[in-house]
Amino acid sequence: MVSHSPIGPVEATKVPRYSGLGTFVRLPQIEAVPDYDVAIVGIPFDGGTSYRPGARFGPSAVRQASRMLRPGYHTELDCTPVKELQFVDAGDIACTPYNNQKAVEQIEQAASKLVGKNKAVIAIGGDHTIALPMLRATTKVHGPVALLHFDAHLDTWGSYFDEPINHGSPFRRAFEDGLLVEDKSMHVGIRGPVYDQDDFIRDHEFGFQIIRCTDLDREGVPAAIKRVRNRIGDTPVYLSIDIDVLDPAFAPGTGTPECGGMHSREILQMLRGLTGLNFIGADVVEVAPAYDNAEVTSLAAATLIFDIMGLLAYKISGRS
Amino acid sequence: MVSHSPIGPVEATKVPRYSGLGTFVRLPQIEAVPDYDVAIVGIPFDGGTSYRPGARFGPSAVRQASRMLRPGYHTELDCTPVKELQFVDAGDIACTPYNNQKAVEQIEQAASKLVGKNKAVIAIGGDHTIALPMLRATTKVHGPVALLHFDAHLDTWGSYFDEPINHGSPFRRAFEDGLLVEDKSMHVGIRGPVYDQDDFIRDHEFGFQIIRCTDLDREGVPAAIKRVRNRIGDTPVYLSIDIDVLDPAFAPGTGTPECGGMHSREILQMLRGLTGLNFIGADVVEVAPAYDNAEVTSLAAATLIFDIMGLLAYKISGRS
Amino acid sequence: MVSHSPIGPVEATKVPRYSGLGTFVRLPQIEAVPDYDVAIVGIPFDGGTSYRPGARFGPSAVRQASRMLRPGYHTELDCTPVKELQFVDAGDIACTPYNNQKAVEQIEQAASKLVGKNKAVIAIGGDHTIALPMLRATTKVHGPVALLHFDAHLDTWGSYFDEPINHGSPFRRAFEDGLLVEDKSMHVGIRGPVYDQDDFIRDHEFGFQIIRCTDLDREGVPAAIKRVRNRIGDTPVYLSIDIDVLDPAFAPGTGTPECGGMHSREILQMLRGLTGLNFIGADVVEVAPAYDNAEVTSLAAATLIFDIMGLLAYKISGRS
Amino acid sequence: MVSHSPIGPVEATKVPRYSGLGTFVRLPQIEAVPDYDVAIVGIPFDGGTSYRPGARFGPSAVRQASRMLRPGYHTELDCTPVKELQFVDAGDIACTPYNNQKAVEQIEQAASKLVGKNKAVIAIGGDHTIALPMLRATTKVHGPVALLHFDAHLDTWGSYFDEPINHGSPFRRAFEDGLLVEDKSMHVGIRGPVYDQDDFIRDHEFGFQIIRCTDLDREGVPAAIKRVRNRIGDTPVYLSIDIDVLDPAFAPGTGTPECGGMHSREILQMLRGLTGLNFIGADVVEVAPAYDNAEVTSLAAATLIFDIMGLLAYKISGRS
Amino acid sequence: MVSHSPIGPVEATKVPRYSGLGTFVRLPQIEAVPDYDVAIVGIPFDGGTSYRPGARFGPSAVRQASRMLRPGYHTELDCTPVKELQFVDAGDIACTPYNNQKAVEQIEQAASKLVGKNKAVIAIGGDHTIALPMLRATTKVHGPVALLHFDAHLDTWGSYFDEPINHGSPFRRAFEDGLLVEDKSMHVGIRGPVYDQDDFIRDHEFGFQIIRCTDLDREGVPAAIKRVRNRIGDTPVYLSIDIDVLDPAFAPGTGTPECGGMHSREILQMLRGLTGLNFIGADVVEVAPAYDNAEVTSLAAATLIFDIMGLLAYKISGRS
Amino acid sequence: MVSHSPIGPVEATKVPRYSGLGTFVRLPQIEAVPDYDVAIVGIPFDGGTSYRPGARFGPSAVRQASRMLRPGYHTELDCTPVKELQFVDAGDIACTPYNNQKAVEQIEQAASKLVGKNKAVIAIGGDHTIALPMLRATTKVHGPVALLHFDAHLDTWGSYFDEPINHGSPFRRAFEDGLLVEDKSMHVGIRGPVYDQDDFIRDHEFGFQIIRCTDLDREGVPAAIKRVRNRIGDTPVYLSIDIDVLDPAFAPGTGTPECGGMHSREILQMLRGLTGLNFIGADVVEVAPAYDNAEVTSLAAATLIFDIMGLLAYKISGRS
Repeated sequence: MVSHSPIGPVEATKVPRYSGLGTFVRLPQIEAVPDYDVAIVGIPFDGGTSYRPGARFGPSAVRQASRMLRPGYHTELDCTPVKELQFVDAGDIACTPYNNQKAVEQIEQAASKLVGKNKAVIAIGGDHTIALPMLRATTKVHGPVALLHFDAHLDTWGSYFDEPINHGSPFRRAFEDGLLVEDKSMHVGIRGPVYDQDDFIRDHEFGFQIIRCTDLDREGVPAAIKRVRNRIGDTPVYLSIDIDVLDPAFAPGTGTPECGGMHSREILQMLRGLTGLNFIGADVVEVAPAYDNAEVTSLAAATLIFDIMGLLAYKISGRS
Repeated sequence: MVSHSPIGPVEATKVPRYSGLGTFVRLPQIEAVPDYDVAIVGIPFDGGTSYRPGARFGPSAVRQASRMLRPGYHTELDCTPVKELQFVDAGDIACTPYNNQKAVEQIEQAASKLVGKNKAVIAIGGDHTIALPMLRATTKVHGPVALLHFDAHLDTWGSYFDEPINHGSPFRRAFEDGLLVEDKSMHVGIRGPVYDQDDFIRDHEFGFQIIRCTDLDREGVPAAIKRVRNRIGDTPVYLSIDIDVLDPAFAPGTGTPECGGMHSREILQMLRGLTGLNFIGADVVEVAPAYDNAEVTSLAAATLIFDIMGLLAYKISGRS
Repeated sequence: MVSHSPIGPVEATKVPRYSGLGTFVRLPQIEAVPDYDVAIVGIPFDGGTSYRPGARFGPSAVRQASRMLRPGYHTELDCTPVKELQFVDAGDIACTPYNNQKAVEQIEQAASKLVGKNKAVIAIGGDHTIALPMLRATTKVHGPVALLHFDAHLDTWGSYFDEPINHGSPFRRAFEDGLLVEDKSMHVGIRGPVYDQDDFIRDHEFGFQIIRCTDLDREGVPAAIKRVRNRIGDTPVYLSIDIDVLDPAFAPGTGTPECGGMHSREILQMLRGLTGLNFIGADVVEVAPAYDNAEVTSLAAATLIFDIMGLLAYKISGRS
Repeated sequence: MVSHSPIGPVEATKVPRYSGLGTFVRLPQIEAVPDYDVAIVGIPFDGGTSYRPGARFGPSAVRQASRMLRPGYHTELDCTPVKELQFVDAGDIACTPYNNQKAVEQIEQAASKLVGKNKAVIAIGGDHTIALPMLRATTKVHGPVALLHFDAHLDTWGSYFDEPINHGSPFRRAFEDGLLVEDKSMHVGIRGPVYDQDDFIRDHEFGFQIIRCTDLDREGVPAAIKRVRNRIGDTPVYLSIDIDVLDPAFAPGTGTPECGGMHSREILQMLRGLTGLNFIGADVVEVAPAYDNAEVTSLAAATLIFDIMGLLAYKISGRS
Repeated sequence: MVSHSPIGPVEATKVPRYSGLGTFVRLPQIEAVPDYDVAIVGIPFDGGTSYRPGARFGPSAVRQASRMLRPGYHTELDCTPVKELQFVDAGDIACTPYNNQKAVEQIEQAASKLVGKNKAVIAIGGDHTIALPMLRATTKVHGPVALLHFDAHLDTWGSYFDEPINHGSPFRRAFEDGLLVEDKSMHVGIRGPVYDQDDFIRDHEFGFQIIRCTDLDREGVPAAIKRVRNRIGDTPVYLSIDIDVLDPAFAPGTGTPECGGMHSREILQMLRGLTGLNFIGADVVEVAPAYDNAEVTSLAAATLIFDIMGLLAYKISGRS
Repeated sequence: MVSHSPIGPVEATKVPRYSGLGTFVRLPQIEAVPDYDVAIVGIPFDGGTSYRPGARFGPSAVRQASRMLRPGYHTELDCTPVKELQFVDAGDIACTPYNNQKAVEQIEQAASKLVGKNKAVIAIGGDHTIALPMLRATTKVHGPVALLHFDAHLDTWGSYFDEPINHGSPFRRAFEDGLLVEDKSMHVGIRGPVYDQDDFIRDHEFGFQIIRCTDLDREGVPAAIKRVRNRIGDTPVYLSIDIDVLDPAFAPGTGTPECGGMHSREILQMLRGLTGLNFIGADVVEVAPAYDNAEVTSLAAATLIFDIMGLLAYKISGRS
């Protein structure tokens, strides 16, 4: 943890929430603090999109919606993240919109500068492609990780139009790169048809287990929490949330919405059941604001990030 | 109850629902009946808003959406409110948009003319500030009440920018004014971070108990109904519903949406579990139509008001 | 089943999903195959609407949203419909927008050409009026059917403005025509007030049982599935889904939205619990795209149709 | 003119414009005054629509947008209509949505009660079908009229799907009924392709002259005003404005938008150039609010109606 | 010209315009006719976008909006294109979304199959990148061309993020490839700030002249027509229209809107002033439907394409 | 002018425009430079609104839209403002949303710190109320000014609901405070009805002349430029632009839209005709993003601000 007393967000009693430059929950910019525990960084890249593009505007939209949060005490996690750790907004990582390979390198390079032994990074996408360089940067410091992946889709597909780097393949690439601990990773929220049943066989070979939305129907969220905790144990975990894990009713503003998804309360309940896991990095991706409505999708993403801030406060501050 | 046979809404078989001046569910205007049991009144005030303004257009939007209802027999409550009581649309209360103190006085004065020993008022907000003058007008006739408050937020905060009258403080003001019976009031649907954990301590001192959305996750709606009934008993109850108690998926058109909220079916189930409580007034507030989508928020508000009409029919017509 | 190996949709690995003329899930047009098992046909008629019109644009919107599906393996139903049966897009049925009686005749005539002993038709509405000619065409081949009807509303009302053919009356007309097997039909998802309590009495006389949304609150989806299976048994079933059976949060783009509806996961769970029923035809109606948001309603409709394709694959391919 | 001093709209200094039941510019309802000079009446009928329906919601949307006007002194016409004449809001005419012939009869009957020797009616559509019964009702009192018709389309087409009464045919029907003075009528704003060049020949036979948008490009608005004045002279004029005469940029919320239309300033300039014409009735039609954006279309319609109020004040109050 | 009598669009009197699979103005698909004069083809590629992506959905949106046109007699051009030439809808060109170089090759290859000595192609973008392969395919048959380019932006910029193929550079690439006749090309509608004044110097070196929107303010459209006609003479012309040449009021649904643009009437007037030019190919690009409103942008694009059809009918049918 | 070479915006060739924290056209924040010539500051206050509120979100929306500009060379003004002067983004002025008097004092105080002898401030509103404290702060340094005011409305009204400080009164207050040079001020773009003809008489007494939109119809923009230049001469000018001066087609996202307004090209042409005037401060106000569409209003506001930057570069850099 940083040695100084954390500098918190702008105070809403002095500056109305709709005022001022919109860093994430109005946190200090990275340049304004001597050191930090957790950096929140935007990665406005959507060159890996296969259907609706637009996640390049995700970071600015999620920051704008995050104004609505009152980033203080979190009742369910019983903590005030911004008082326990130094959170900062590290701005956006600039990368080319035209070349997925290059973009992934640029992102890895920039993210690597933010990651550290005692420093976590939370990325705001961009499309899901950005999880690959985030994993590369993170595992360089922390070694292989368990991936806890909330999504409607497996994202372990192969190349698409001869392009191995796309938003449907980051976790196959991560597996091939040896970034994932064997048999520890999980998908949560999977649903919908797939082009080929073999997709599941390959996914299994990459070491994933799946909790489908229909599993939640049958067994409920507490059972799912148990399955996740049992499988991951104390392995370092990278958390990757594709906002399309939520039903389109809760997150219309996304690139490949899928009917029959998780409700906001379910994913919040799951995250709050995962305190104490060894989280070492995270991303929330695939917010495509052009398809959003009254900021409901951006706000959902911002809320999830605030919960991740709480989970990191738990972990980094060494709570049990 | 009025002595005459109630005059009901315009008949949809003769005048299509999209036709005619839009009073609430096309009820008669107050001037058109000799007397009434329940007045529905708009209070288009949003000067107390702290984030997204626009609830001043709430009354006109909720009335427009209420055209979609068929205001007859209510299966779950087994009653036809408009046949049992005389409901009227009392129009809107005119008040200044610029001065919260004055507006609150103007609202109280106008509402007082509508309230009566055997007359209930249902207010359509406007922002939550309007609950304070509504409580003042109501308790002048009925004495202190239990407050049953559905909301994402406590609304027992203090002054904001030196203004004691705002949409985050009505129930602290009501408590200070002695309008609330000690230890009978409840918040339902609370969630999200707060600036300071002490907010809950103060809220408790003002005599509130809280049912959080995470309580609903754990215990379900029937348990919550039991808690409400046990606490309130037969104390006169004022019901105040901030539409943001619903998740943004169900109510995007509001000023301070909060992810992880109640689903429409949950709040309807709760209300229908509260028949027989001694309701003496109510409001439904914080519909901000500029952020709505296909009238889903306005329609939710109109539906809740129709359920309140049923609860009042139960109570006033002396059903057990 | 057709004797040839089914011709499937356009391959997404060769032609991106946003490319090409948008037949339903990019299936072949009816002219492009020698024969078919299941025809999907649009019926862009909304002359029976009583509130918000616009379902005439339903077929084009649902086809457009269906691009988002990956129409391959269906995990819950464990089948790949487009490999088991020949599905085709039969285009739209042209009919007058101005005369409900004539339109119904034109639709019946056109639908009759698509229906066959071993051929099912899935209609995309259009308003619910189109269920009547669909039932007429279907029962001419298959005899009277059980109707399994998902809807917020009964749709067994009588004439409206002297017009017996409208979107609130198709199932009363079907009953009067003797198209329904006695005491086998069911409504699922009913809610909201009705003009008159007698509506339920008449509905009962027409041989319907009702599962209200509040029944789902109390008993859950598995119990509802059991009730449906018990009642229908192996009677031939026509499935009619009004998209307003979903809550407005999940389906804002419809003509008469009703608060407190089914969630997407609930209806999908129900359909998937009905494998083996003797489905012989279906429709999904009342998508009104002008009120939709980011295609969430159209996508829900497309997803339901894909599930129906799975149920038909089950049935026609003789799986048990 | 009425003998009493006109009762004006609600005063905005006492009741904010977003408050109260929304009659047109908050005029008194017809029941609230002893007599009137001009009645504004909604005709929420869209059964004649050939493409996008929804104009049934036109009257409620135009009234809502009219709140934005400050209905006092009109600089260009140098008059304060509501002080010179008694204007009232006569509510909506109820008619069947299902049968164009019947609807037209119902509208004629209801409109006839509002029309009078010294009483003008301004109708808010509804689709353009409603111009036919408006003309029938008006000419019964005033005899045949010159039609001054602003529209992208001729609306002198014939039957469509065997239905002679539809929104593309009102003026052919009016011509056939002998409601139009020979060689006095004009279309203004015509543009876009037509199915057949003969449409223009027939239109000419019905006694129309045409000012196309491309004529405005070439000659400007003042020349167009001159052409209109010369042709119409002092013949009694019925003014019919289809909002799609405006370019979709100015009026997106309409049923059959047509690119390349009039700009708002052009139509206002034209109307203001027509003072002194012998206007005896008018309609503004085809606002389809589901396609509108921030009320720009409804506001345009409301503004045009206010200008018509000024033209009638000119005429009825006998100014020269 | 084809030797057979042209097969026209679906007849709107038999099949309502909202019915049926939506080819452009409901023209026959290319497979349905023996030969054609003009092919309209979609190119759903937006990988060259620098700001708002989404033009990949341009072709489907423009086709949907084109239903609104009545594709018959064009008054200003005095012709009925679909009766004079055989127009077809050639579907969409499939290409990778991930690699601009490859995509451009794929598009060139596919377009080359459609182009011919007496066959013109009109492309619906897609972003402006697609003009490059269109020019390559076209000039292979017709030799170098004059480019008539309507746009807010020059599109003669260089590489962006090291990518020479992007939507800001097609015409520099075309110039470098020798596809443009020296000193014959023109930009029309240019406006807004540029990164560097040198952009204009280079643009001039590539042989372009510029008509800025401010030139239109000063000189009017007829003068601009004269300038274009004088410069181009009878050189073969390729016409490329970026929809952002229109002001955002007329075309909000585009990737890089620029305030102060052309009005719809101005561009239509210009096109109609260019009859007789030797048009040999065209595109209309940069419609990004996620940002559109009530289809106004798509409809503008469809209308421009219909005018281009008229210009080609003029030219190919040898009118003078 | 600052003595250092100006630090310009983030380079778009290195950081895509959708990346990074969104200061206005991505200028440096005020803290990042030693000194500045022109500060752009947001004033998110909308407590003076009389109809649609929401301009508190104006500054964040205008900054977001300003990303679309390429803030380099301005062709019409032949300058590159950011190379000639040091422009900075000074963030937002925090003020109470609840008390207009206090807010005005807070704004004046904060603005006064930014204003200076050789320092201009451009304010982004907020509602028009903010022009009053801006004028107070500006005239403290520069003495009384001529006001050049673009607006649909006079904004010289009096108190509204007893509140003298509101968005309809800033210029009456300014006149009363002696902030305006007699007989030098002008309104441009006025239109629409007013409550009372006397409004114009009073307005005249406050020393204003008016150019109505109908004057532009008659005389054109060049004549209007001449009138402005003649009247103002070399008096120091404060420029205040209410975005509702534009027609709702060009600026739907505003609080009190008025049909028949200026087109974007007209206001740009006017501004560009005013080079050399002695501009000493400016504001662009009344953008209400909740009513905007595809950012067209915000983009119009950002574009106008960029033109003002050019006018200031002209003036401060002493060009003639």
